[in-house]
Amino acid sequence: MTQAGSPVATELIERVLAGERRAVARLISLIENGADGVEEALARLYPATGNAYTVGITGASGSGKSTLTDRLVAAFRAGGSEVGVIAIDPSSPFTGGAILGDRVRMQGHATDRGVFIRSMATRGHLGGLALATPQAIRVLDAAGKPWIFVETVGVGQSEVEVVEATDTTVVVVNPGWGDSVQANKAGLLEIGEIFVVNKADRPGTREAMRDLEQMLEFGHRGAGWRPPVLAAVAAEGTGTAELREAILAHRRHLEEGGGLAAERRRRAADEVRRIVMERAAAAARRCCTGAAFEALVDAVAGRSLDPYAAARSIEGV
Amino acid sequence: MTQAGSPVATELIERVLAGERRAVARLISLIENGADGVEEALARLYPATGNAYTVGITGASGSGKSTLTDRLVAAFRAGGSEVGVIAIDPSSPFTGGAILGDRVRMQGHATDRGVFIRSMATRGHLGGLALATPQAIRVLDAAGKPWIFVETVGVGQSEVEVVEATDTTVVVVNPGWGDSVQANKAGLLEIGEIFVVNKADRPGTREAMRDLEQMLEFGHRGAGWRPPVLAAVAAEGTGTAELREAILAHRRHLEEGGGLAAERRRRAADEVRRIVMERAAAAARRCCTGAAFEALVDAVAGRSLDPYAAARSIEGV
Repeated sequence: MTQAGSPVATELIERVLAGERRAVARLISLIENGADGVEEALARLYPATGNAYTVGITGASGSGKSTLTDRLVAAFRAGGSEVGVIAIDPSSPFTGGAILGDRVRMQGHATDRGVFIRSMATRGHLGGLALATPQAIRVLDAAGKPWIFVETVGVGQSEVEVVEATDTTVVVVNPGWGDSVQANKAGLLEIGEIFVVNKADRPGTREAMRDLEQMLEFGHRGAGWRPPVLAAVAAEGTGTAELREAILAHRRHLEEGGGLAAERRRRAADEVRRIVMERAAAAARRCCTGAAFEALVDAVAGRSLDPYAAARSIEGV
Repeated sequence: MTQAGSPVATELIERVLAGERRAVARLISLIENGADGVEEALARLYPATGNAYTVGITGASGSGKSTLTDRLVAAFRAGGSEVGVIAIDPSSPFTGGAILGDRVRMQGHATDRGVFIRSMATRGHLGGLALATPQAIRVLDAAGKPWIFVETVGVGQSEVEVVEATDTTVVVVNPGWGDSVQANKAGLLEIGEIFVVNKADRPGTREAMRDLEQMLEFGHRGAGWRPPVLAAVAAEGTGTAELREAILAHRRHLEEGGGLAAERRRRAADEVRRIVMERAAAAARRCCTGAAFEALVDAVAGRSLDPYAAARSIEGV
């Protein structure tokens, strides 16, 4: 089973490797749309990847993630690093007032050539966000961005999968968060390597931080890393420097303990597994159409063949 | 790929075909646990199936579905029919107070040999409820029950799939339901062929019925069948006879218009498709283990092989 269709132009790939913004944007659009030839293009970029450090930022809608990401981009830029940002939108990037508003605000970096910001949906990508996001990260990585932030809207299963595919995961909550996201609390605790109580000028901040600290006593899985709990008021820029420091500290922890290579290998295994599953599902769907399939269904409906025997008789499965 | 393992004893299959209760219970347990040899056993039962008429009963937790099912069983028994009931429990049948309570209450039929009641979880079944339920229905069908009721707890995606696999779907709501299950409203409207406002001695019954009638003006997909909206107080037995009549009317509608055969063929296609997908996923999972897989992952982690090429190189996918 090979990926058919028109190849992505060699010229585009070379321009991505040269770090050209428009080429990067174009290739991410092709990924988003599940275009033909993307797999081949990514195969050619792949040897040039693995240099970027990736940070996932997640939390409930309205928690101020985008503002925090915005400030964090500025902090890393001030430190001299180029930065890429992928903002995962569950729907199209051009619907949804709040999301659009966020993107517009992030365009404060629009004139900064060292920042590439891109919101991404998954209009046609087989396997959805969980497979499209690592591909988009690789494009920014190959284009030479040493820091890549992936911001997700919401805290559902697919968002969690997305941020779990990054090196460091930052979970953003607000004072009083425990009441509103009760259901996802345990899940968020498990994935976060750094916790930020944003909007920390509001009542309940101290309680939220203490609450988190207590739960982290028991809940975190990361060996040897105790997730810090930070306070921030992203709208005023408070806490951004501390968050940057915490990210750098977690990176050092992973790099010095050998955890980074181990984590990335684990993620490579997950990704290959996901792709295999997705290809198997696609192949199975293709088998379940056409005249031969309909004839089998007729036999099943007529009770001359049982459904499991029919399934077994479908070639290639 | 064949189903390995110990075959289910021929004697058990013969006892199921003879309608023996303990054999029926035993085979449903084997299905629940995803035991080896079940596929073969069901293949042998399959020619003896297709005679039962199946009714799905669904609605939110606490809507009184179980009481209604209980009354309906009594009404069909009074009409002379033998009845099978499968109550789908999302977890084990022996946890959960309300569920256990329901089952105990249904044991009012315990001394009636013409009624077989069984709650079912899916402890080990590959493909979950959506594949296990048709198998369990087939056991009751082969055992000679002409009417089979499938009751689901809750209104989630998998419960909807379960009741959609029956000939007639009854959706149970309560007065004021619109406020509480807003999110599932459209989904429930689409699957129901008969609607029952249970606990109709409570305020808001008329509004709930009118609300449903209005939405059904626009919402229902079934050709030529306008779903009736009934009122019931199952706890007092009110409305049960009307519900039985509505089920019989829907059955006549399907049988006379040729819709029953068409629907069952469509469901057969769905089931074969599900089994094919499940088998493909299981095969893919097996491919993603072992030394060869780990070597591929090493190559991906070392950037000498991209994840898509690794996935393509895995045999059989």
